[in-house]
Amino acid sequence: MKHLLSTRDVSREVAIQLLDIAEDMSAVNEREVKKLPALRGKTVVNLFFEDSTRTRISFEAAEKRLSADVINFAAKGSSVSKGESLKDTTQTLAAMGIDAVVIRHGASGAPQVLAQSGWIDAPVINAGDGTHEHPTQALLDAFTMRKRLHGAGSRGKGLDGVKVTIVGDILHSRVARSNVWLLQTLGAEIQLVAPPTLLPHAVNTWPVSVSYNLDEALAQSKPDVVMMLRIQQERMHDAFFPNEREYSNMWGLTQERFFSLLAKTMVMHPGPMNRGLEISSVAADSPQSTVLEQVANGVSVRMAALYMVLTGEREVTHD
Amino acid sequence: MKHLLSTRDVSREVAIQLLDIAEDMSAVNEREVKKLPALRGKTVVNLFFEDSTRTRISFEAAEKRLSADVINFAAKGSSVSKGESLKDTTQTLAAMGIDAVVIRHGASGAPQVLAQSGWIDAPVINAGDGTHEHPTQALLDAFTMRKRLHGAGSRGKGLDGVKVTIVGDILHSRVARSNVWLLQTLGAEIQLVAPPTLLPHAVNTWPVSVSYNLDEALAQSKPDVVMMLRIQQERMHDAFFPNEREYSNMWGLTQERFFSLLAKTMVMHPGPMNRGLEISSVAADSPQSTVLEQVANGVSVRMAALYMVLTGEREVTHD
Amino acid sequence: MKHLLSTRDVSREVAIQLLDIAEDMSAVNEREVKKLPALRGKTVVNLFFEDSTRTRISFEAAEKRLSADVINFAAKGSSVSKGESLKDTTQTLAAMGIDAVVIRHGASGAPQVLAQSGWIDAPVINAGDGTHEHPTQALLDAFTMRKRLHGAGSRGKGLDGVKVTIVGDILHSRVARSNVWLLQTLGAEIQLVAPPTLLPHAVNTWPVSVSYNLDEALAQSKPDVVMMLRIQQERMHDAFFPNEREYSNMWGLTQERFFSLLAKTMVMHPGPMNRGLEISSVAADSPQSTVLEQVANGVSVRMAALYMVLTGEREVTHD
Repeated sequence: MKHLLSTRDVSREVAIQLLDIAEDMSAVNEREVKKLPALRGKTVVNLFFEDSTRTRISFEAAEKRLSADVINFAAKGSSVSKGESLKDTTQTLAAMGIDAVVIRHGASGAPQVLAQSGWIDAPVINAGDGTHEHPTQALLDAFTMRKRLHGAGSRGKGLDGVKVTIVGDILHSRVARSNVWLLQTLGAEIQLVAPPTLLPHAVNTWPVSVSYNLDEALAQSKPDVVMMLRIQQERMHDAFFPNEREYSNMWGLTQERFFSLLAKTMVMHPGPMNRGLEISSVAADSPQSTVLEQVANGVSVRMAALYMVLTGEREVTHD
Repeated sequence: MKHLLSTRDVSREVAIQLLDIAEDMSAVNEREVKKLPALRGKTVVNLFFEDSTRTRISFEAAEKRLSADVINFAAKGSSVSKGESLKDTTQTLAAMGIDAVVIRHGASGAPQVLAQSGWIDAPVINAGDGTHEHPTQALLDAFTMRKRLHGAGSRGKGLDGVKVTIVGDILHSRVARSNVWLLQTLGAEIQLVAPPTLLPHAVNTWPVSVSYNLDEALAQSKPDVVMMLRIQQERMHDAFFPNEREYSNMWGLTQERFFSLLAKTMVMHPGPMNRGLEISSVAADSPQSTVLEQVANGVSVRMAALYMVLTGEREVTHD
Repeated sequence: MKHLLSTRDVSREVAIQLLDIAEDMSAVNEREVKKLPALRGKTVVNLFFEDSTRTRISFEAAEKRLSADVINFAAKGSSVSKGESLKDTTQTLAAMGIDAVVIRHGASGAPQVLAQSGWIDAPVINAGDGTHEHPTQALLDAFTMRKRLHGAGSRGKGLDGVKVTIVGDILHSRVARSNVWLLQTLGAEIQLVAPPTLLPHAVNTWPVSVSYNLDEALAQSKPDVVMMLRIQQERMHDAFFPNEREYSNMWGLTQERFFSLLAKTMVMHPGPMNRGLEISSVAADSPQSTVLEQVANGVSVRMAALYMVLTGEREVTHD
């Protein structure tokens, strides 16, 4: 794997290798030795054209635990704009001998442009681009599911037959897109539930089933996983968006709906949560919730992705 | 000591241990070997909800000299607000395996909330919260006094019988509050001097004497230390605030007042100074001034606090 | 060399030592071992009073490859202003035991003030001050020329007899000033070409020839190097500035002009480029262009400058 741009490109074999490396990394994170020398002397730039405190900190922690040198670059508010400047910025980083670029960008496809441009030879990791993809989020979600389901016996396994229901604003969600491709590759059965106005036209070409009615969907599929997407409040005034109360009643994981789930059903959310809107506190704070495990696993998965693209190794070698 | 939230919680024994560790750290800072491996592999987050360049740099220098990995998080201008978000932010940091949080926050009590919430298990160091406390500032002040008074023979000593006069806007000063509790614990005699409108109602329950008249107070007590507080210019238009000229005449350490002090009297200021307002340049730049020693000692004291909360050691062990 | 403030102060001997050290550093940058331990335990502060992403990242990469601890301080938007505050900020850094300061400042002379003030004993490196100097830029330009001309045989050499034409807004350019002094010290012959309104009055005291006509200048001198300066678009509305089209026609390195150069002529630009204004894409992207080499060499030259001021060594010693 040269870059990590989209989960659509990732084969089942590589996906499972990534999850297995993340397993090793999470063991490191939990043990006394908190730091690996794997990336000593490598310089990683976090190139954030959009604010994202949690994702940036998660990557930064991952990079530092692998002993990389980290340079943060927050383009927001700087004079950097899209076209020419992304090229100039990237060529400059390349010339400086930067070893990897982690990029978040408001424009869908920006990381691809960067990786395929020839402007830079270093690996590129997509940390979220527009409404397109957020591959490390999907990897941490898959890792979290696999770990809950298989525990210590996770290594080498996919998610075959696991039933996942993803609920919310699919239209604008890069998290949903990355999950659809990755979960399908790993063998999961995916159901999307959303108001009709919040589903993309292309959804009928996706490897998923679709429903507009959350209660019916949950009753029929009895999912292993319910993944609630974050509602971006700034979209609330869009014409195609239901109002908050209606949204919560129809597509939120309210207390009633949460209680109707099987006790084994995992409740996932990429964070930060709007409690009382797309998810009730009783669901978010229940033992079925994996919200904080997802955050913890995020560091392990990002260590794995950095390790794989920067060392070319497909398993962790100890030096 | 699990956390460092308030000097009110710190026993005499622990306070002296902290100052003694800081003594060792200052020796490190002055010697050729500038870096200790004590915190290698630990990740410390500087969580600054308020701007404070000097305090942040002082902590960052301290963390790096102890070989910690440092992640800076400036919440100002980000969408993080107080209640729910502090919880979410903290739980996220906890899940990422952060080993310690240094927090500055505009709301009094925020570090306590964070430490006692159960949201995070890591040690929390208060780097200034609202008008409540700034414990590392008080520790560096106490360290500076002890070192000037006892030099190489400081180890193990408190500040018994040392007369300290603190002058200025006590009402809004977290520096004053932290100093009152710590200095009293260490045995000092504390006198506060301020305009009546800049004293808190609770001052009569504090272990201090109070005066409104600086000339009388200095003449009567002949203090070992005069600590001038910074006037925050943005308060100058408050109804209960004297105007600048009046303030300087009545409560500033003017040249005349400075010359009336005993030659042994230390002149302290937490910085940055408003020269000509609360302190005259002749006082600030005199050999009696400890302003720059305070800054230098700040790094040592912060190293000591980080060392104590993160290693659990009560003295420096060399590895 | 205690500080690096201006190329005017740098002797030929020291300039060549710097370029030779940069040569060693560039070998490090290109080899497997990407990190030297030379500055381990040293704390370097990047004190940027002006935004400059590329220069800051270049310095930060250089510092980290030498294993220094790096603290970034972006004063823009903070309450730091010029006079008193530069003093306070500097004294604070000095007291914290900072080992070197890299400063960029909008006011010409600020780094000199800082170095000569006695406020701080640490070495100061000028990363660009007002319209005054940008010495590491000139050093990387000289390094780039020397390397293109002499390749592996560069060590110990100057730029004797090399003909350099610098074109553009000389009046406001710190890059031009630093290059004039350094290139002259190294033995180059310098020609400046600019509209009359964009030349400083003092230019007749400089060791250069001057022309207002780019075509004539290029035809007559047949330069080894053409260095195009960046046009700062915010100056475009100044009274003494030609409009964009006129500027490009008269003083830009258009495609026609580029094709009229000898094939050996290097095309340099400090970046970021305004393509189509001061430089055409065909020139910028040609094999004659050194634009990306300049960026790469920037890291090596900054490593050399940091190494020299911080270790006092005049050649690289391996430990």
